[in-house]
Amino acid sequence: MGPMEPALTIAPGDRIITTTADAHGYNEHMKKVAQKDNPLTGPFFVEGAKTGDTLVVRLEITCPNRDVGWSSSTIAPNVVDPSFVQLLPEKQYRDWKIDRGGKTVTLLDAQNSRPTLSLPLSPMLGCIGVAPPGGQLISTTTAGVYGGNMDYSGYREGATLYFPVFTKGALFFLGDGHARQGDGELSGSGIEVSFVVQFVVDILEGKEIHWPRGENSDFIFTVGNARPLERAVQHASTEMLRWLQEDFSIGIELSSMLLGQGAVFELGNVFDPAYTMVCKIKKSDLNNLIDSNP
Amino acid sequence: MGPMEPALTIAPGDRIITTTADAHGYNEHMKKVAQKDNPLTGPFFVEGAKTGDTLVVRLEITCPNRDVGWSSSTIAPNVVDPSFVQLLPEKQYRDWKIDRGGKTVTLLDAQNSRPTLSLPLSPMLGCIGVAPPGGQLISTTTAGVYGGNMDYSGYREGATLYFPVFTKGALFFLGDGHARQGDGELSGSGIEVSFVVQFVVDILEGKEIHWPRGENSDFIFTVGNARPLERAVQHASTEMLRWLQEDFSIGIELSSMLLGQGAVFELGNVFDPAYTMVCKIKKSDLNNLIDSNP
Amino acid sequence: MGPMEPALTIAPGDRIITTTADAHGYNEHMKKVAQKDNPLTGPFFVEGAKTGDTLVVRLEITCPNRDVGWSSSTIAPNVVDPSFVQLLPEKQYRDWKIDRGGKTVTLLDAQNSRPTLSLPLSPMLGCIGVAPPGGQLISTTTAGVYGGNMDYSGYREGATLYFPVFTKGALFFLGDGHARQGDGELSGSGIEVSFVVQFVVDILEGKEIHWPRGENSDFIFTVGNARPLERAVQHASTEMLRWLQEDFSIGIELSSMLLGQGAVFELGNVFDPAYTMVCKIKKSDLNNLIDSNP
Amino acid sequence: MGPMEPALTIAPGDRIITTTADAHGYNEHMKKVAQKDNPLTGPFFVEGAKTGDTLVVRLEITCPNRDVGWSSSTIAPNVVDPSFVQLLPEKQYRDWKIDRGGKTVTLLDAQNSRPTLSLPLSPMLGCIGVAPPGGQLISTTTAGVYGGNMDYSGYREGATLYFPVFTKGALFFLGDGHARQGDGELSGSGIEVSFVVQFVVDILEGKEIHWPRGENSDFIFTVGNARPLERAVQHASTEMLRWLQEDFSIGIELSSMLLGQGAVFELGNVFDPAYTMVCKIKKSDLNNLIDSNP
Repeated sequence: MGPMEPALTIAPGDRIITTTADAHGYNEHMKKVAQKDNPLTGPFFVEGAKTGDTLVVRLEITCPNRDVGWSSSTIAPNVVDPSFVQLLPEKQYRDWKIDRGGKTVTLLDAQNSRPTLSLPLSPMLGCIGVAPPGGQLISTTTAGVYGGNMDYSGYREGATLYFPVFTKGALFFLGDGHARQGDGELSGSGIEVSFVVQFVVDILEGKEIHWPRGENSDFIFTVGNARPLERAVQHASTEMLRWLQEDFSIGIELSSMLLGQGAVFELGNVFDPAYTMVCKIKKSDLNNLIDSNP
Repeated sequence: MGPMEPALTIAPGDRIITTTADAHGYNEHMKKVAQKDNPLTGPFFVEGAKTGDTLVVRLEITCPNRDVGWSSSTIAPNVVDPSFVQLLPEKQYRDWKIDRGGKTVTLLDAQNSRPTLSLPLSPMLGCIGVAPPGGQLISTTTAGVYGGNMDYSGYREGATLYFPVFTKGALFFLGDGHARQGDGELSGSGIEVSFVVQFVVDILEGKEIHWPRGENSDFIFTVGNARPLERAVQHASTEMLRWLQEDFSIGIELSSMLLGQGAVFELGNVFDPAYTMVCKIKKSDLNNLIDSNP
Repeated sequence: MGPMEPALTIAPGDRIITTTADAHGYNEHMKKVAQKDNPLTGPFFVEGAKTGDTLVVRLEITCPNRDVGWSSSTIAPNVVDPSFVQLLPEKQYRDWKIDRGGKTVTLLDAQNSRPTLSLPLSPMLGCIGVAPPGGQLISTTTAGVYGGNMDYSGYREGATLYFPVFTKGALFFLGDGHARQGDGELSGSGIEVSFVVQFVVDILEGKEIHWPRGENSDFIFTVGNARPLERAVQHASTEMLRWLQEDFSIGIELSSMLLGQGAVFELGNVFDPAYTMVCKIKKSDLNNLIDSNP
Repeated sequence: MGPMEPALTIAPGDRIITTTADAHGYNEHMKKVAQKDNPLTGPFFVEGAKTGDTLVVRLEITCPNRDVGWSSSTIAPNVVDPSFVQLLPEKQYRDWKIDRGGKTVTLLDAQNSRPTLSLPLSPMLGCIGVAPPGGQLISTTTAGVYGGNMDYSGYREGATLYFPVFTKGALFFLGDGHARQGDGELSGSGIEVSFVVQFVVDILEGKEIHWPRGENSDFIFTVGNARPLERAVQHASTEMLRWLQEDFSIGIELSSMLLGQGAVFELGNVFDPAYTMVCKIKKSDLNNLIDSNP
């Protein structure tokens, strides 16, 4: 992700419908359309966006657009005890049948293709964000203040996302669709598949944030990407404290207590070069607090 | 926690009703009954329990038994960005009104005692476990393979817990009740209060486990306690792989894929000397898998 | 390490000559004298030592007292890349010939006992310290503010050590002699051997320190024991800042700059439950500073 | 660092004499020659270098070329205990007099410019390496497999360095000279100054390495850059095991034992986005081993 030639120039308010290839570069017709792993769609140059603004992205549709996805067959060596690594099987890729109508994904046995494990369909985008600060061009395998490969299940339709803008036009990217994924991306992949994505962009001019933020119907959330994992917690909780103070006018003590007694954390990934932790506050808790502080 | 004189000897199948003091040693009558911070109730000597067994604890009631709790007023220095520490307020203690009927906790303003923030009551035990291995006697501020101060919100009524037994009689302890607590225990305390607790014990003879396990109506879960936080993830995910293979007869590849696409993680604490991460698998996912593997 | 019955009561100024068994409990005659691994000699009850004092230990002799030591044959799984673990050989134990006159240690081939690798003899104590705070009894495999299993090569004859006292009599322990050891204790053992040790104790009454400190002819040093490794750095550098301010009357800015431009770090271990980093300042640098600040 | 227009094209065997600006962009005449912080000199396009080769750089001269350097006045918040952060002074910059003849650096008092602290001159390059893999363009504040901002005191004249080549021409960069620096770069800066640098390049065709390597008269060394710090240890020790096996024909068991009993670690930095640990083996130890294994 970085200062590449824009794929499309869009304006605030525009509604975009696009597609993404899977992590090995295959599209909805199982045709290879990208040579490198983890290809992204974009960048979208957002007219008017400039350094120091916030880019708003409302995800309206995030849905697989074919019926077969794949995943790694084994848990990754860095997410089990070091002494357990030698017991892991060799890594291979397995196919999952995606039933968009029945809303399930089903693992097919490697030998006889019989169904082996069925789980609810739960689509999400593994990778999303803007061009990094300072003109950097950074691999789509990692993440930072600009977003990136966070593998967080909350990046899905219904969510509104906020990214700090570090360059003219923001240069928005997205991709790496997963039909579903466990917390932590323990096997180093979700159920990888091509997607159709619909989103609307907007800009908050002069609004400066430090890490990706978002909200859905129930929560506001902040995202930290770093190693070790507690550093990701620190980034996310600090950004939430900033948000509560700046935009909800809640003082530092009350913000601290709301986090202390109300924070909900979700693990994005503990596999990629930067780990991801997400700090959430319930909107209902926030409303309780605001109502009682006239 | 360790080899102390038993407070009570109990037998498998016994139902125990007991109370716990709050983290400053005050009981339900606000009387100081323990001199040191974070006092626990116990140890309970469980007849027949021996090294290499598993202790089963079914939590039937975990409920505050008074109407006022307290919490720290500020987020802890080690859970925010280092550069943010200087912006934190001075740590103080604040009172919360606990409404057991209405199932809420309400923060009272330090100046005028007016209600400031209301959150759902959600009681849990911060500290629970058995005597550590090797005859160790370890502070109730930390945690390990034996349980301890994990500050995980899943330790609550309705849960059945499993602890490895490291000494004759297991020497079971519990305490540190919280009327509620945010994930991570970011402020270094929950809403601290005395509790009434009812539980039933049992023993799985010759059943050896490596880390605390548990289940409730929806999930089975394993608990890792360590620093850094990803090490706690490693312990929890490794213990879950063992559990799936040993007790559910699911092979290593299928176990890996179930974790990869189905794991749910919860953050216990990121404040204490050992951090806590909990790896959960949905019972409904597990049933799907088992049914399809006859 | 903890509140055990004293092996001997000693007084400030006493010179003690004692022996230690190797990490498998064998003494200088290859006779098993301890049942558990990593046995220590002690505790020594130091008359007059009380909570809040500092125990001073001058190590005068730390020397193997037999001619054969042993080490693990493989590097530990947690000190290589997770993806490299499967390439490690199976762990076995190998003998080393110790030549105290020639000051070498020589690895003997497992098949034919021919010399394979010769390194300089460089004896050190892997484990040293006092009873932990709060009456805890903690395994000799780990370390903390009280010292413990730090596996730092600076714990050797010629060094003067300072430990915080947490209990009456301090209860001083030592053992786990290594004929030599690489930084980090990457294979999970040094060249393990029984030792003869001579030391002199003293007490600094009312002098409170937070972590082990020490000095030798060239350096003063502070020791941090924790995970992750950067946390051990934080503890050691913080304790050094305290030391410079309290005992050398150097202000916080100048202390910071002395550390920034003059600190030397040594890695104790990156294998045990708590990792060890040591922060050193050259006495010559310190003298330069003091002389120029009259 | 990344795919920028080459400043100069050079060939294997060429001897280059160049200069570097200080971390604020000032040259030997105290003239600002770069707008961004931490500017580097380069990239040098090395004729014939291609992906999968190793770039060899022999540092012949690394020397300050002016008489005043500067450093931060305070230790960084992330290298002390979180609870100690509030005691740190405000960060400012201080000047140091550099005496190249007398081989000292001397801190000048901020008020009266009197000498306050004198330390030995010990020049090193904070930043050195090649273009990162995959066409990435990465900030000069961090480090990775390609080298970068490692702030390791071993990058100095007399050292021969090896970098993996990830792109045609390697694109070699260097800069960020420090008149001296403590281990860990605890204050977030060395004594920053412009440098003159002389080096000779070579290529090892088809020789693939995974992390920076180097050697000087006494040691061979490997460098790991990552968080947490133990991950940097893992990278460095794994690369050393590879080196011993591939280029010295020492089997995995003997390599493990040599590291276990002979490794020396040095801390580069514990301040930058990626921390740096260096694993060293004494050439004399290596010779002992090779001689005895005909």
